[in-house]
Amino acid sequence: MNQVKQKIVIVGGVAGGASAAARVRRLSETAEIIVLERGPYVSFANCGLPYHLGGEIVERDALLLHSPESLMARFGLNVRVNHEVVSIDRAAKLVSIRNRLTGEMYSESYDSLILAPGAAPILPLLPGLDDVRVFTMRTLPDLDRLMAAMTAEIKHVSVVGAGFIGLETVEALRHRGLAVSLIERSEQVLAPLDSEMAAPLKQELTVHGVDVLLGESLAKIESAKHLTLHMESGRLVQTDLVVLAIGVKPENQLAKEAGLVIGSTGGVLVDNQQKTSDSSIYAVGDAIEVKHVVNGKSILLPLAGPANRQGRIAADVIFGRKSTYRGSQGTSVCKLFGLTAASTGLNEKTLQASGLDYRKLYIHAGDHAGYYPGASLISLKLLFAPESGQILGAQAIGEKGVDKRIDVLAVAIQAKMSVDDLAEMELAYAPPYGSAKDPVNLLGMAGQNMQSGLLESIYVEDLEQAIAGGAQVIDVRESEELGGGMIPGSQSHPLSLLRSGALTISKERPILVYCQAGLRGYIAQRFLLQNGYQVKNLNGGYLTWSMYQAARKSQR
Amino acid sequence: MNQVKQKIVIVGGVAGGASAAARVRRLSETAEIIVLERGPYVSFANCGLPYHLGGEIVERDALLLHSPESLMARFGLNVRVNHEVVSIDRAAKLVSIRNRLTGEMYSESYDSLILAPGAAPILPLLPGLDDVRVFTMRTLPDLDRLMAAMTAEIKHVSVVGAGFIGLETVEALRHRGLAVSLIERSEQVLAPLDSEMAAPLKQELTVHGVDVLLGESLAKIESAKHLTLHMESGRLVQTDLVVLAIGVKPENQLAKEAGLVIGSTGGVLVDNQQKTSDSSIYAVGDAIEVKHVVNGKSILLPLAGPANRQGRIAADVIFGRKSTYRGSQGTSVCKLFGLTAASTGLNEKTLQASGLDYRKLYIHAGDHAGYYPGASLISLKLLFAPESGQILGAQAIGEKGVDKRIDVLAVAIQAKMSVDDLAEMELAYAPPYGSAKDPVNLLGMAGQNMQSGLLESIYVEDLEQAIAGGAQVIDVRESEELGGGMIPGSQSHPLSLLRSGALTISKERPILVYCQAGLRGYIAQRFLLQNGYQVKNLNGGYLTWSMYQAARKSQR
Repeated sequence: MNQVKQKIVIVGGVAGGASAAARVRRLSETAEIIVLERGPYVSFANCGLPYHLGGEIVERDALLLHSPESLMARFGLNVRVNHEVVSIDRAAKLVSIRNRLTGEMYSESYDSLILAPGAAPILPLLPGLDDVRVFTMRTLPDLDRLMAAMTAEIKHVSVVGAGFIGLETVEALRHRGLAVSLIERSEQVLAPLDSEMAAPLKQELTVHGVDVLLGESLAKIESAKHLTLHMESGRLVQTDLVVLAIGVKPENQLAKEAGLVIGSTGGVLVDNQQKTSDSSIYAVGDAIEVKHVVNGKSILLPLAGPANRQGRIAADVIFGRKSTYRGSQGTSVCKLFGLTAASTGLNEKTLQASGLDYRKLYIHAGDHAGYYPGASLISLKLLFAPESGQILGAQAIGEKGVDKRIDVLAVAIQAKMSVDDLAEMELAYAPPYGSAKDPVNLLGMAGQNMQSGLLESIYVEDLEQAIAGGAQVIDVRESEELGGGMIPGSQSHPLSLLRSGALTISKERPILVYCQAGLRGYIAQRFLLQNGYQVKNLNGGYLTWSMYQAARKSQR
Repeated sequence: MNQVKQKIVIVGGVAGGASAAARVRRLSETAEIIVLERGPYVSFANCGLPYHLGGEIVERDALLLHSPESLMARFGLNVRVNHEVVSIDRAAKLVSIRNRLTGEMYSESYDSLILAPGAAPILPLLPGLDDVRVFTMRTLPDLDRLMAAMTAEIKHVSVVGAGFIGLETVEALRHRGLAVSLIERSEQVLAPLDSEMAAPLKQELTVHGVDVLLGESLAKIESAKHLTLHMESGRLVQTDLVVLAIGVKPENQLAKEAGLVIGSTGGVLVDNQQKTSDSSIYAVGDAIEVKHVVNGKSILLPLAGPANRQGRIAADVIFGRKSTYRGSQGTSVCKLFGLTAASTGLNEKTLQASGLDYRKLYIHAGDHAGYYPGASLISLKLLFAPESGQILGAQAIGEKGVDKRIDVLAVAIQAKMSVDDLAEMELAYAPPYGSAKDPVNLLGMAGQNMQSGLLESIYVEDLEQAIAGGAQVIDVRESEELGGGMIPGSQSHPLSLLRSGALTISKERPILVYCQAGLRGYIAQRFLLQNGYQVKNLNGGYLTWSMYQAARKSQR
């Protein structure tokens, strides 16, 4: 196949499209490769936009990874920016193209067509959204417009939507010294996390002076000298500029009009070789629907990593190479001021919504050995299957080492590993990097204990009902640790005295023990259980309890 | 089994022994648990010793994780420090114990015995080694003695042995402002790495003022006002103190005298349940021999992580729980000044020595997106099986993000993953943390290209012969990159001009292309190959070539 001169047309020249084009060239020097990019730039760093806004990336040019000229020189790609494909004639294998600068229309034939049009910002149909002071943050021109609007008079900016782009934009605006309001419809920030895991992000935003409005939906924008944002609740926010970061939707119109099958999510449907319902047309990146590797469900998952890999796979398949996409697992990470939050696989919300059976556990462990300076806690949540112990999902938040643990857990999900496998992982240990028992090992060991019945857990959300049912709550932390607060209604029985002291705890009522992070509670639980008590350990201890309280408070 | 009161005696109270003891208690409140520790401390942070020496860990007490009292209070453990087990009567199930403070002898019976005596520093039989100014760095008393000897007159210290402890000790001594010589018998530092991967560590040591002597064996120590170290080569080093960090050997004497089977490596032989040849006696940690998960060979691998996990497994097995140790893979990491070096699985030296067939590849990639500030290169080496592509080993060195990639690759080895799996890994990406194609993905993609014949590589070590055979060496870097040097005899043909320019390169002779890190060389290789040239890409490019040159220079 390599011998026949092929003509490959690629719609979209950023992540997936650019990857596909470069791979096609490596596979065939004779192929004619035409990349049609609607916007004025190809291969730009869209993930870097917020960081240029915030000033960390000083030079705008740093975001331009390639130009049409450099792609021609390096790969012999015929890249046409400001050229939009407006229709596909599948029977004739032709695309119609509009030159957006001149208005000129023309067509190109193709042997294979790769669709990589990406996704577009969701723009709700709200009054006032057409004000010139309302921006999105998807492309370099979007960023250029926003930055041009940031004159000295601009003092306050509102960001609508608390996903990755929203949070990164908020941080960037604070770096610029602006007052910022963050408006999010749901009761938490960063939807890929469960609400208790996202609670520290809300606190981090507040600490950094961001006005966070959760559970507030924008209803309309009133334009005057300033903008007035009206929430559905009636609440008002006065602001100078608005950045909409509600989310994105797949650019499916071209595919839809060409009669290609669109998935139930709105993404272009492809098989595991990136083929659409037309075997000469491939689609990759944010425009498509993917299968989740854990539950097999069709989802939209606009992420740069999968887009790049899919582009490479489409090129491989066109040239007859065995290459398949295995699905996505939603591994993602977000830096927010001093915190890093990351997740992989399914979260608890999704597991509950899909009716899948699962177990969960929390740990809070140092990113490295506690005796080596600079250690900080990582809070981890693990979701796994009750029978097999197979890992279904994981979330983590902390100052350091968060991305490492989520990467390790992402590979564990990819390999269909279980809690047993986590317990046995041999990770790189020296005091500056980890612990002899890494947090991931601890997750596995706690999971094993849960699976084998050694560790009987109660979860924060079940605490109230258990107390109402007569359970006694025992705080086993040492007395000097209690200054930061205790769970209301709990009694202090420090672990260091539990074994030696006469046990004054009643055996009549069930006991719920907790410590700071869960481990000492487990030790106390094993002691009390074997001494004839009915006892459960509060999973994740006081720290998890605090995260739940913070999440709940956000929801009020 | 839990119901019968068991008596468990544990020899050694640090990593593996302490883990076993705590786990036994969690499994059984009725068990009598006696921990006999020969030294004056239990459960101390032996991995932290060099960091206290260097002053990063300010408080000595930070290294004492537990005391006999705290272990009694928390776990009801009967811990006896300064108590040495001198013999085992297997028939009677008795151990004889010497109280090292009083000289008193007594015995204890056991139902199960767990041996966790650790390893001892290797002390060669050399004249002068008994000088009081010669130290080891294995226990807290070792460290105390060394630190007490560091009076103001001490200006120069020599460290013998460039393994983990040796390197960490060198850095600590430099932190204290001392002049340091590092003496290592082999031609490289940090034996778990291959020599070219270790070369940057040598440079880092030199940059930080360390006098590094490779390929030098200590022959004797001459004691006078100062110490004079005589090398076998005749070279002399004047010094004030010596720290011996040549390595450790398993403490097998007790087991040997008891007639337990000792493995060919000198480590106590155990099965995958940590059982010795006597089914009532278990052994864990640095004293035992383990199986390497990649090649199944019996090895000594004194690491804290495996020791801790083995202790837990021994306890589980005693109480009838299904728990097995799967072998070790030698994942390790070392911080040296500004560099981190880490490895997992087998290295090339070992693969060659064991006659295993393998492929290898090098990449040099940013720890995170190049357009986000602060990115630095990680050099990675991957070893994999020719047919299956299964990962056999990996090494990495760089300033940041090294431990993360090696952890990911360690899990890949554990899961028996191949280069295909690496290419498809979905790791957490945002510009501060990685790239849309993570270095691990790049390893996988390069491995796939090698497997499928797209990427034809030549290695640095074969370059001379190829050139002698008539190959032309082409440097495809841009002209502004050449200031740092080129491979002798190479011609410059920048990639940006290769495609447009008239090709002046002869088709008669085979071509070897290289760029800085390997990727652009690959692009050039694909272009030239498809234009009728015989061409190979120098794997890892100029950077790998430089690492080889540095390693070679060390060996001169």
